[in-house]
Parts: sequence; structure tokens; C-alpha cells
Amino acid sequence: MQLFRPIRRAILSVSDKKEIVNFAKELSKRGVDLISTNKTADLLIQSNIKVIKISEYTNFPEIMDGRIKTLHLKLHGGILGRRGVDDDIMKLYNIPTIDIVIVNLYPFKKIIKKQNCTIEDAFTNIDIGGNTMIRAAAKNYRDITIVTDKQDYESIIKEMDINKNSLSLSTRFNLAIKAFEYSAEYDSSIANYLGKFFNNHNNTKNKKSIINFPHTLNLNFIKKQDLRYGENYHQKASFYTKKKQKENSISTFKQIHGKTLSYNNILDANTAIECVRTFDKPACVIVKHSNPCGVSISNNIKKSYINAFKCDPISAFGGIIAFNRKLDKITLETIINNQFVEVIIAPYIDNDISQILIKKQNIRLLTCGNLNKPISNFDFKSVNGGLLVQNSDIDIIKNENFFIVTKRYPTENELNDANLSWKVAKFVKSNAIVYAKNNMTIGIGAGQMSRVYSAKIANLKAIDSNLKTNGCTMASDAFLPFCDSIKIAADIGVTCIIQPGGSIRDIDTINIANKYNIAMIFTKIRHLKH
Amino acid sequence: MQLFRPIRRAILSVSDKKEIVNFAKELSKRGVDLISTNKTADLLIQSNIKVIKISEYTNFPEIMDGRIKTLHLKLHGGILGRRGVDDDIMKLYNIPTIDIVIVNLYPFKKIIKKQNCTIEDAFTNIDIGGNTMIRAAAKNYRDITIVTDKQDYESIIKEMDINKNSLSLSTRFNLAIKAFEYSAEYDSSIANYLGKFFNNHNNTKNKKSIINFPHTLNLNFIKKQDLRYGENYHQKASFYTKKKQKENSISTFKQIHGKTLSYNNILDANTAIECVRTFDKPACVIVKHSNPCGVSISNNIKKSYINAFKCDPISAFGGIIAFNRKLDKITLETIINNQFVEVIIAPYIDNDISQILIKKQNIRLLTCGNLNKPISNFDFKSVNGGLLVQNSDIDIIKNENFFIVTKRYPTENELNDANLSWKVAKFVKSNAIVYAKNNMTIGIGAGQMSRVYSAKIANLKAIDSNLKTNGCTMASDAFLPFCDSIKIAADIGVTCIIQPGGSIRDIDTINIANKYNIAMIFTKIRHLKH
Repeated sequence: MQLFRPIRRAILSVSDKKEIVNFAKELSKRGVDLISTNKTADLLIQSNIKVIKISEYTNFPEIMDGRIKTLHLKLHGGILGRRGVDDDIMKLYNIPTIDIVIVNLYPFKKIIKKQNCTIEDAFTNIDIGGNTMIRAAAKNYRDITIVTDKQDYESIIKEMDINKNSLSLSTRFNLAIKAFEYSAEYDSSIANYLGKFFNNHNNTKNKKSIINFPHTLNLNFIKKQDLRYGENYHQKASFYTKKKQKENSISTFKQIHGKTLSYNNILDANTAIECVRTFDKPACVIVKHSNPCGVSISNNIKKSYINAFKCDPISAFGGIIAFNRKLDKITLETIINNQFVEVIIAPYIDNDISQILIKKQNIRLLTCGNLNKPISNFDFKSVNGGLLVQNSDIDIIKNENFFIVTKRYPTENELNDANLSWKVAKFVKSNAIVYAKNNMTIGIGAGQMSRVYSAKIANLKAIDSNLKTNGCTMASDAFLPFCDSIKIAADIGVTCIIQPGGSIRDIDTINIANKYNIAMIFTKIRHLKH
Repeated sequence: MQLFRPIRRAILSVSDKKEIVNFAKELSKRGVDLISTNKTADLLIQSNIKVIKISEYTNFPEIMDGRIKTLHLKLHGGILGRRGVDDDIMKLYNIPTIDIVIVNLYPFKKIIKKQNCTIEDAFTNIDIGGNTMIRAAAKNYRDITIVTDKQDYESIIKEMDINKNSLSLSTRFNLAIKAFEYSAEYDSSIANYLGKFFNNHNNTKNKKSIINFPHTLNLNFIKKQDLRYGENYHQKASFYTKKKQKENSISTFKQIHGKTLSYNNILDANTAIECVRTFDKPACVIVKHSNPCGVSISNNIKKSYINAFKCDPISAFGGIIAFNRKLDKITLETIINNQFVEVIIAPYIDNDISQILIKKQNIRLLTCGNLNKPISNFDFKSVNGGLLVQNSDIDIIKNENFFIVTKRYPTENELNDANLSWKVAKFVKSNAIVYAKNNMTIGIGAGQMSRVYSAKIANLKAIDSNLKTNGCTMASDAFLPFCDSIKIAADIGVTCIIQPGGSIRDIDTINIANKYNIAMIFTKIRHLKH
């Protein structure tokens, strides 16, 4: 049952006026009567489109500076009235049927971002009448079409042309869903904004007093793709992203080749991308089970890959490989000839690599666009019944912010390795210990409940990969509380340590480092990650 | 500037009628004129409260089966009109001012949960007029009071009595914020429900075709508490929970004693609670850095604690300890005398333990109520710009669902230890290897990028804790792909293995297990956790 409904009478009231002139023209051409709010009407009249202003249609003026312009029986009766059910009452009150409602709202989010926006500006810009028309029309989707997204204008005209100026029930249904999504997001942004002032009205004029986290948190995501399953086969899963992306990331990926991404692919790819973007030089990050298992920087990505792989070839098997430069043919060939890989991600790819991939259906190849330094965002961790919300950890260390606390100053190489190992430690699950030498990781100790085991694992890994720890740099994601860890480090040949510092026993660890001629750097920033 | 506004005229239209009679009575006593929709009015009239029906007030009937009952200039002009600005126009159109709007909406969430609810029932129950009144009144908070939550009735009357029947600007402001939060949540639940049918209108009558994950995901949380910082000091953080909790969890905790919880405390406490609730016998779970570092079951929680602690005393230092039984004095004393602890959680606590805590200001003691088996929920993992959503992993293994794949059948003890180690492996970050013997973990290998290292760590831990692996059971959260892991297990004395199975080399691992007389259990379920 498609319940085709011919479009004969339209209401237009749009804040975002892009494309509206053309859409209105096409509707008008098809004999649709247009009724519109003042500003939209003025724009249409300029383009010689025939339109009736709402105030003429209802025979009632806009009052209260536009606070009341569409709240009128003739409009809302026409929008809410059910064909075949409410016909008599509509005739009685002289309420003509409306067939299509085209409304978008004051851009609340844009307005509150303005530097000089006051709380009163924000309230003034909350749309009441427009939102009511949207919701009323969506409720009556069996008879009415509601359009809130300008991207739908074109397909609506196309469908009208196919169906003798009518739209199908399923089209109206989908548009109604989009309308409620639009309204949910609109009121979510109002609630998030106002919620920052909850119990704090006296300070609405003092920008500094605005709190970070609103009284309620209202989040809206749009589905990017359903996934075959979640972390495990018995869990269903889907990947959602924000409608507007601030920056390139896993959420902006385009898949160039290969099978559909899995839940764990996306999770690991996120870690790989976020880690690789922190490097300026051509870098490669290999991730497995949410942890980097090999990272290297070099003058070109092929060499970076080869060195990243060396750190832990066993774990790299079936891993996720990310680059911060365009993927070239020679690097791709090197990877394919060297190992089994699940996902490769790069900002861009060379055009001539499609031939190589034909034989490799299993490799998923993604591009995500230029990777700049990360932008502040919210990071969520779900617990049963709730959500932990924090500002994402976007701090990126620079060598000039190192605090050298030992007598010996690190050499140029040690400084570089300290920088590398520190950036990697940030993405390794805590407790994290990372050894690096000559611009590559040589041992990564991840996810231990006590720090000493992370150090032991990092060491084990280096030995198992035939990599010499002599002369390497060690990073610890949180402070080293005891002298024994420095001694163990010295024993295996660590010559430079980078750690946050901040323990009550810092003076002891510094003394021990001095004794072993180890150069030690404090970052004064911790990077726990769970 | 408090802009006190005396309350003289009220609109009432409530779907949830609890407390409304009393509130209306109190308003009426204070000389407030009441205007109400039909059903609310009928209820008030039954209680001898003087009330005017909206249709009388506007001199216009409810039409279209109530689809239009409040969309009238006299109402919305009275709600949106600004005192001192719109007075003339209000006088011109004979629009009296409204001072307070008391509205709550059809309970959309309840209706869609009904077994026989059709998509048309859902649409019929979407409130248009009520929501418009709420949003209009909230927008005009400088002059109008909007009440959407019955919990505010009492305090409003109290404030009126203090301020000569007036409410302050800051009260109206907070109530307006709550109104937009209410509206955001309402439309979120509509969007989430309808979004499951996006592009699927033809199948709206076929319940089985409804997809799990809607077109957009709209989430609403309320702040439980701001946190001092996030995972690290430079990250700001807050803890949000759902308004309605399905079950007891970290989100329902009550803090009985100690300092404020940190971000990492909450994260770890969640893991501890979710793990401990999977056991029937008195159990203790100790968590550090998001991983269980000691778990035991016994006949009483004191013994469970002592055995859980033995597994990894170093990691247990500063850990989170959870029980699935009431916390008693002797257990608390045992913990305090034994170790430094950050958080203790139990369903309830004995009344006589407050004396013990006086000396220990640093220990955070939480109760969270009875812990039953977990209920299905969404689990979120945030990536940059997006959200991975999956059904939470609530599967709890039962011994009768074990698939014994070896010649030898596990002994009673081995079966129990297999059950324990498997339940723990589910909460240990992948790759996870857990050794258990005599109802306690004796080695936990967590968070490694290759499985063999997790096995090595579990072994290292057992040795370092002076616990004998001889005769222990080993759990692996994902299948064991190679025979060598079975050999290594046999070498250290493992006599029983529990793992999902499902590798293409299962037959080889079974053969090797048989050779070493190891009993092996397949669960056919995987528990990766990242």
C-alpha cells in the first residue's frame, strides 16, 4: 500500500536558504501553491516565483517580532488533519490541506559558537513555530511530506515526476524519521548548551564560569555502517559517526579495497591513525589487539614500515598498518610480500596500485585524508548504565618541553628516540613501557597491572626479536616510583629514560640515574590509557 | 536581578497525573487560575478544584480526536509574549498572560515497549501540542515558569510561599533547561525507535525485520558527578549515567565513606562489579589498571579475599576490591590490615563497620545494591569522531554447556576451576590467559598483542607469587591456534584447558591434549575485550 499523495500545496520556511529558490521553482512549475514565511517569501518573489505569505494565507500578521508567525489553526489544522478522517472538520473550519512542509531551523549551534553570543541571544534563536511544523508534519506522514534536509530536494522532484506529482508512503515515512532525528539533534544541542549553566544563572555573563560538562549530555550520531558482529561473534554491532566531522580520522575513512571492516578493525585502525598522526616525519604504526606493536619514523614510509615490522613480527601478523604519508606502490608491495595484513590506512594512495591488490582480496585498504595534529574532542568510555566522559588526550610532546633532570644531557639520538618512545607509550595500554633505538621501537610492554611486568615484557620482546637494548631509550607512561626500575634499565643498557616524574621519590630516581650516567627526561604529563 | 514573577494563571496538561491533584490544589489555594486540557481537568474537577477547560478558555473545541487542542493564539500568545515588550499586541488580541505551564507528555517509551504496539500506535502517541507548549514556555523563561518534572512541584510551592507567590529568575531558568532536556530526550527516543525502520517501511508490521541499530543514535545521560580529572591530570572529566537504570551497577553506587572517586576508580570498579556478579558463590575480584589481578570464590568473602590477594600481591596494592555479598567487619579489617586499597565495593555493608573506617579516610567504600546476572545493554567504545556500538557481552558460561573434546573428562575440581578461569578471562584485556587452581586465580596474563606472551606472563606471575602451576586449569579468551601452546601448558603442569575452539587446527590441538592427558573444554564462545 503506497498511498501516493499528490503535492498541491506547500509551506516553506527555511533558515538555510541554499537551493530553496530552485526547489520552489520546480514545485511551482508543477502547479504547487507555495505559502511561505516572510523572509523566504521575499527571496522567492525576487526570483519571480509566485508565493503567498503566511500572514496573507492565515489573514493574521506575524506578531511579537516573529515569535508568533506560524502557530495558526489554518496551518496546523492543514498539517495535522487526516485525509478521510478529518475532512468534515477541516471543511467546517475552512482548513485547506497542506501536502508538503519544507522547514529548517535557526542554526542554533552556529549562533552559540559566536564570540559575543549571550545567553539571551541563544534563547532568542530557539525556534518554536518551525519545530512544531516539522514535528506535526512528521506525525502526519501518511498524508504529508516533511522536508528538513536540502539534500532531499532533488530526489523529491524526481519522484514527483515519476509518480504524477505524488510521493510514495515509504518516501514520506523516511522523511518523517529524518524530521524527528533533526528535531532530536536540535533540542540536544540546546540542552547541551544550556545545561552548562544549570544552577548557575547568575554567572551566565561570565564566560569563564561556564562549566565544561552540561547537566545532561545529549549525543547524536548517524550510522556509518552495520558491522557483521562486535568484539565477539555473539555481539551485534554498528559504527556510528558524528554528522559533522571536525577533522580526518577513522570516522572519515573511504574504503578503497577489500572486505568489510570488522569492529576490531575499526578500533585498532583508530589507535593506529591517532598514533601515526603525532609524527612529523614519514611514520609507520602497526597495531594489534588495540596496542601498537611496532612504530618507526624514517625518510620514507617503506623504510618506516620495515623498521616498525622488526619490533614484533609475530604480533604484526594480521595487524593494522597506518602511515602519515601517501601510500606508494613499492611500500604496498613490500608489505604484501612480507606478511599477512588485515588493514592498511594512509591519507592517500598512489593511483597505480590497484593492479597489486587484485590478487589480494582480503586486504582492506583505507584512505582517510590528510592527518593534521588532533583537535580537542570528547572521549567516552562506557560502564554499565553510564558513560565516563573526558577531554581526549591530544597532548603531543615537543623536545623543547622536555625537562632534563639528570647531570648528563641526552644526545641528539637519545632526544629523538625519547620523543618517539613517549609518543608510542601514549597509545600503549597502561602500564606501558616502550624501548626505542634509532627511530624505531624495539620492545613494547603493554597493559600490565604492575609497571615492572611491562618492563619485563618489553625486554622479553626485544630479546625475542633479536634487537639489542644496549643504548636504547625507555619511556614509561606514568612515573617510575622506585629506584629498582632504573637499575633494571641500566642493566639492559638503557641510556636515556623519559617519564612524567612527580613521584615523592623523584630525587632518589634522579640520583640513581646519575650514578648510571643515564640521561633522564621528565615530561610532567602522564599518559595513562586503559 | 531576580525578576520575581507572581504566579496568577496556570496551564496544566499532564499525561503522568501523579501528584498533579495536590499540586493543582496548592496552586488554586494561592489564587492561581487553572486552565487545563480535558482529562487533566476532569481529574481536578473530581477533587473539587476549580478549573477552566482549554476549549472554554480559547472558545474553540478540541478537534481531530485531540490532535489539535492547544495550538491556539490565546494560549501560545500568552506563553510567548514578553512582559513589557509585547503588552500592547497582547491587549489588542485579548491575550492574557500565562505565568506557569505544567506539562508532561504521552510516555512514548512505555508505549513502544508494549508487545502489540504498531508503528501507527507509536505515531499516534507522538505529542505535538504539549511539546510546543513546553518549548515555548521554556524559551520565554524570563517571564514564564515551565514545569515538566513532578519532582519540582513541592519546591515550587515552597518558593511561592517564601516570595509572595513568585518564583525567581534563576528557578525559572533551571526549569527551562530541564524542559529542553526533557524535549531532547523525548525526541531522541522517537528518533531511536523510528530509526530502526528507516528504509524499511514495508516491513513495519514484521517484528522480526526490525533492525537492532537505528539510522541515528541519540543518547541522553544525566550527570552523576564531575570528576577532578580524567585518565590523566590534564584531561577534564565527568561521570554521566542513564536517567533510568535497568539494574544495579557502578552507575547506582552510593558512597558510604572516603574521598571522591576518580575517573580510573569508576572504570576499574565497573570491571570489578561486572566480573564479581558472574559468580554464585561468595566471590572477591581485585582490579588494577582495568584488569582483574586476583579472583577467588569460597564459602565466605573473607577467605575469597585472602585467596584473591595471593594471586598478585604487588598489583593488588592500591587496587579496587569487589564482593558479591554483604561486606562484614572481619573482612574489612582483614583488608585494611593487609594492604593499601583505593576502593571497596559490595552490594551492602554491615552496620557495625563505621568505627573501623574512621582511621582510614582514604578508603572509598561503595555499596551498589544486589548484583544479579547482567542484563543486555549497549556498550560503547569511542573512536575519534565516532562511536562503536555493540550489545554488551553478558554471556555467562555454565558447566552444562561445556563441550569436552578430549578423551579424559575434567575432574570436579577442574570443572570448577575451568568455570572460574573462563569467567575471569572474559574481563581480562585480550589476549588473556588465566591460570586457576582450587577456586582461585594463580596467574593472569593480560593485554598482549600475541597470545604466547600472555601465557608467559601468567606463568611468570604464578612463579613470582610462589604459586604452583602444577595441576592448574588454563583459560584462553580466544582459540589456541597452535599446538605449541598446549605443549608449554603441559610443561608447567596444566591439566585442564578451557578455550573457545574453532581453529582450523582444532584436531591437532585435541590430539596433543590427549597425548598429555590434558582435559580440554570448548566453550564455542569467544570473549575478546579491548
